[in-house]
Amino acid sequence: MAVYTEVSDEALRAFLSGYDLGDLVAFRGIAEGVENSNYGLKTTGGDFILTLYERRVDPAELPWFLGLMRHLAARGLACPQPVAGTDGEALRELAGRPAAICTFLPGVWPRRPSVAHCGPLGEALAALHAAGEGFAAERANSLGPPGWAPLLERCRPNGDTVQPGLCAELDGQLAAILQDWPQDLPRGHIHADLFPDNVFFLQGPDRRPRVSGLIDFYFACTDILAYDVAICLNAWCFEPDLAFNVTKARALLAGYNRVRSLSAAEMAALPVLLRGAALRFLLTRLYDWANTPAGAMVTRKDPIEYLRRLRFFAAAKEVSAYGI
Amino acid sequence: MAVYTEVSDEALRAFLSGYDLGDLVAFRGIAEGVENSNYGLKTTGGDFILTLYERRVDPAELPWFLGLMRHLAARGLACPQPVAGTDGEALRELAGRPAAICTFLPGVWPRRPSVAHCGPLGEALAALHAAGEGFAAERANSLGPPGWAPLLERCRPNGDTVQPGLCAELDGQLAAILQDWPQDLPRGHIHADLFPDNVFFLQGPDRRPRVSGLIDFYFACTDILAYDVAICLNAWCFEPDLAFNVTKARALLAGYNRVRSLSAAEMAALPVLLRGAALRFLLTRLYDWANTPAGAMVTRKDPIEYLRRLRFFAAAKEVSAYGI
Repeated sequence: MAVYTEVSDEALRAFLSGYDLGDLVAFRGIAEGVENSNYGLKTTGGDFILTLYERRVDPAELPWFLGLMRHLAARGLACPQPVAGTDGEALRELAGRPAAICTFLPGVWPRRPSVAHCGPLGEALAALHAAGEGFAAERANSLGPPGWAPLLERCRPNGDTVQPGLCAELDGQLAAILQDWPQDLPRGHIHADLFPDNVFFLQGPDRRPRVSGLIDFYFACTDILAYDVAICLNAWCFEPDLAFNVTKARALLAGYNRVRSLSAAEMAALPVLLRGAALRFLLTRLYDWANTPAGAMVTRKDPIEYLRRLRFFAAAKEVSAYGI
Repeated sequence: MAVYTEVSDEALRAFLSGYDLGDLVAFRGIAEGVENSNYGLKTTGGDFILTLYERRVDPAELPWFLGLMRHLAARGLACPQPVAGTDGEALRELAGRPAAICTFLPGVWPRRPSVAHCGPLGEALAALHAAGEGFAAERANSLGPPGWAPLLERCRPNGDTVQPGLCAELDGQLAAILQDWPQDLPRGHIHADLFPDNVFFLQGPDRRPRVSGLIDFYFACTDILAYDVAICLNAWCFEPDLAFNVTKARALLAGYNRVRSLSAAEMAALPVLLRGAALRFLLTRLYDWANTPAGAMVTRKDPIEYLRRLRFFAAAKEVSAYGI
């Protein structure tokens, strides 16, 4: 649920005067996303999304994110396109925050992802990886392996209040993951946060879900492509009771392979990538759990769900042991 | 910020199949309103708002609210119109909640209401009161004077933790208000919650704000019309530092009088109506302050802001003493 920054009428009007979007028709806060403030903006020119970038986003990195979105859209990927003002600049300021207007994407994110979503998701993820080629600038993954030990340190003062012995268990898991982490896998620009609420679907003529767009590229970075697959397997293929759904995982991988084939080396590395992805979300959730003020307007997410995933993936050395 | 109930894709699709609204294009939670779950719904047929009624709304009263909105819209008031399903019924069920689709209203609610908003607001309020005539069914105001003593009792266990001596002060204020409460003023259907976030404006050709619509009728009831004016004076005419802005109050009253003249008796009763309105919002905020769980996804509103208003209005016996 996210509207952290209120925008006054006068400020909005002044901001929109820098664009050629017609007259203001509506402006409503969107109860989605947890990092930034998002507003649905309707003008006589159409529907748009206005994003105010909040503290977790480094303003210096915004040109990279917007540039990547522009590059991906130009290569045919359905993702929000930054809308330039009359001066040609898309990244502007509103209510003391960096701000940008992007195109509105049709579609609905799946509240309960099914097997039917996972194939199209895999295809869309591979299409994203392919479309990212040729975007020369790189962005290091600040939440990648080198960031995990420092993040665990920041969780240590309160981590064991969530579950006794948790930090010691994570010390062990982290050491094992870093030791096994692959060094030579294909790299590229990855989304790094492709959870169900960042993937819009519409029903195709065959009544099956089709991906209509991918959103929220503000964790995107340059990293191992198969790590993005591991993030999606974590995010899409567990049931509410945290059982791993092999059918969903197979559908996701089959979809991915239809667009970009995972190599034998990538498949062999999947177990450690899956453990790493589980640890990454466990750590940020653990940190947020212990550090979210009680009055904050966000729902804290349970870190233990990702401990369960991590333990599941750590129990096997080969991907075949998961059933995929 | 309000999305309390998540709606699954399957449930949404099944729900929409009961309407003739075309194909689903988008479905996004709206971060506004605190009582119900609201979603922006876009179909090939247009833009709509889907509301799921949460626990504070009595399902038995929903037909009255929807009927009033239909009546008001038919009399020319710009307010959401319930959209009937193919079976003619507007009130339906979704995700275990009563639910309705209403028309989308253009406009933006003013984050910082100015004098220029208060005249059009007063006109719109009077137009609402006039348009309500002829809607025969009545709804008692559950948050009107008979409800205040029980509400204060429910606040008593924790009320003084907000400010020492608060409950004793409110006991005195309540007794005085009930003693002075007018009995013979014109009654009708009132909005009873016409705060800035429930009034949409668009800029007119003269660049001045015009009311484009009124929303959120789920506190509407049958009560003293001038009490609705008193609620608006409380809600719209105090500055952030809680100074009463006489210019805004005069503009609001002048706007109201252009459409429906307040009688001498109504003006004479305004001081006690203003105290009552301040007390009503003070009490619900006080109750919520002491009873909102820490993890809830709503921002608690400071009850003391309304104690300041109550004291301001209680300091004078005649409306002229406020400068209006």
